[in-house]
Amino acid sequence: MGRDARRRLSRTQLTSAALELMGAGRSFASLGLREIARAAGLAPAAFYRHFPNLDELGLALVDECGATLRRLLREARRTGLPPTQILRSSVLIFRDYVREHRAHFMFIASERGGGAPVIRQAIRTEEGHFAREMAQDMRRLGLMDDLDGDDLALLCRLTVSTVIDAITDILDLPEASHKAEREQMQELVLRLRMIFLGARHWREPRPAN
Amino acid sequence: MGRDARRRLSRTQLTSAALELMGAGRSFASLGLREIARAAGLAPAAFYRHFPNLDELGLALVDECGATLRRLLREARRTGLPPTQILRSSVLIFRDYVREHRAHFMFIASERGGGAPVIRQAIRTEEGHFAREMAQDMRRLGLMDDLDGDDLALLCRLTVSTVIDAITDILDLPEASHKAEREQMQELVLRLRMIFLGARHWREPRPAN
Repeated sequence: MGRDARRRLSRTQLTSAALELMGAGRSFASLGLREIARAAGLAPAAFYRHFPNLDELGLALVDECGATLRRLLREARRTGLPPTQILRSSVLIFRDYVREHRAHFMFIASERGGGAPVIRQAIRTEEGHFAREMAQDMRRLGLMDDLDGDDLALLCRLTVSTVIDAITDILDLPEASHKAEREQMQELVLRLRMIFLGARHWREPRPAN
Repeated sequence: MGRDARRRLSRTQLTSAALELMGAGRSFASLGLREIARAAGLAPAAFYRHFPNLDELGLALVDECGATLRRLLREARRTGLPPTQILRSSVLIFRDYVREHRAHFMFIASERGGGAPVIRQAIRTEEGHFAREMAQDMRRLGLMDDLDGDDLALLCRLTVSTVIDAITDILDLPEASHKAEREQMQELVLRLRMIFLGARHWREPRPAN
């Protein structure tokens, strides 16, 4: 194994060890640098070869969740599918990705409202990236043409937080419960349809009530 | 002080001590019964006079958050205000209540996606109560009359999770930042308007796109 490969491996050992400790119910804020190194089978000094401090490890975990998922969702929006199918296929991509990265998303779901402000802020920033990319893609695809930039941004922020909010439900679903799973995805699709329908009528004159 | 008053006091000491420990960045799952009793200035045995176990203390905290807020929101809906004003006044009531019960809602925000399944489930159940009460009140007020029961329930669930999702933003707002605060409440009101507008058009025939 070359030097770069060894380096990547020990970095992955550290992030995996942190995820494993959190998977056992610990919050990110309660983790110590030494115990992460120990759980990874590395010396404490090895930690500093990869991260200047603990927060940076948390931020790396947030990045890892976001980067691939953003690419997958952009690809889904660029397939040329009709809009309602983009919505459903994006929801399914999201569900599968969350399941395949279970430990990462348990971290995201619990730190999103949780203890460490720097991590919470990073997750929020990442959500902002998702919303902005979605808005760009919708412009490019000519969807919701009559919304101005601010209103389109509002729609995308609301969509992103509605989807993110479903993470815990996805993770809590018992294995092999196909009926519950279908209902859960249907619920999310219907929520998003209601939001998009509101956006489609956003520019109409409103009844005064 | 009578016996009942003393009993209520030591119960409050225990819940407050738990909230304080969590306010310092600890997750609920990481708390021990003995340390909560110690932080409350009580003997460990005193804990069992109030709660059979730690989970029950967590469930009591969830109840404390929900009960008063539900009453306040029902009152807001029954004032006879026009619907758009009900929406804005409910948002303001919610914000003030979250702020006045800061420690409780830090607990809710972080445990909602966090470590202890029994607490997470209780929070979700409480959110279900909110949504059902909202649906009942809307029926009674004759709002969104053309939605059937399932669709009205969908609208109310989506509304409740959109509002709950704003808790972290409310808690993270720097003190005395009136501009940021106005923007934040405006964002939430606009999100809810988009959802309600979608609900109002839910039963219309949809364009095939």
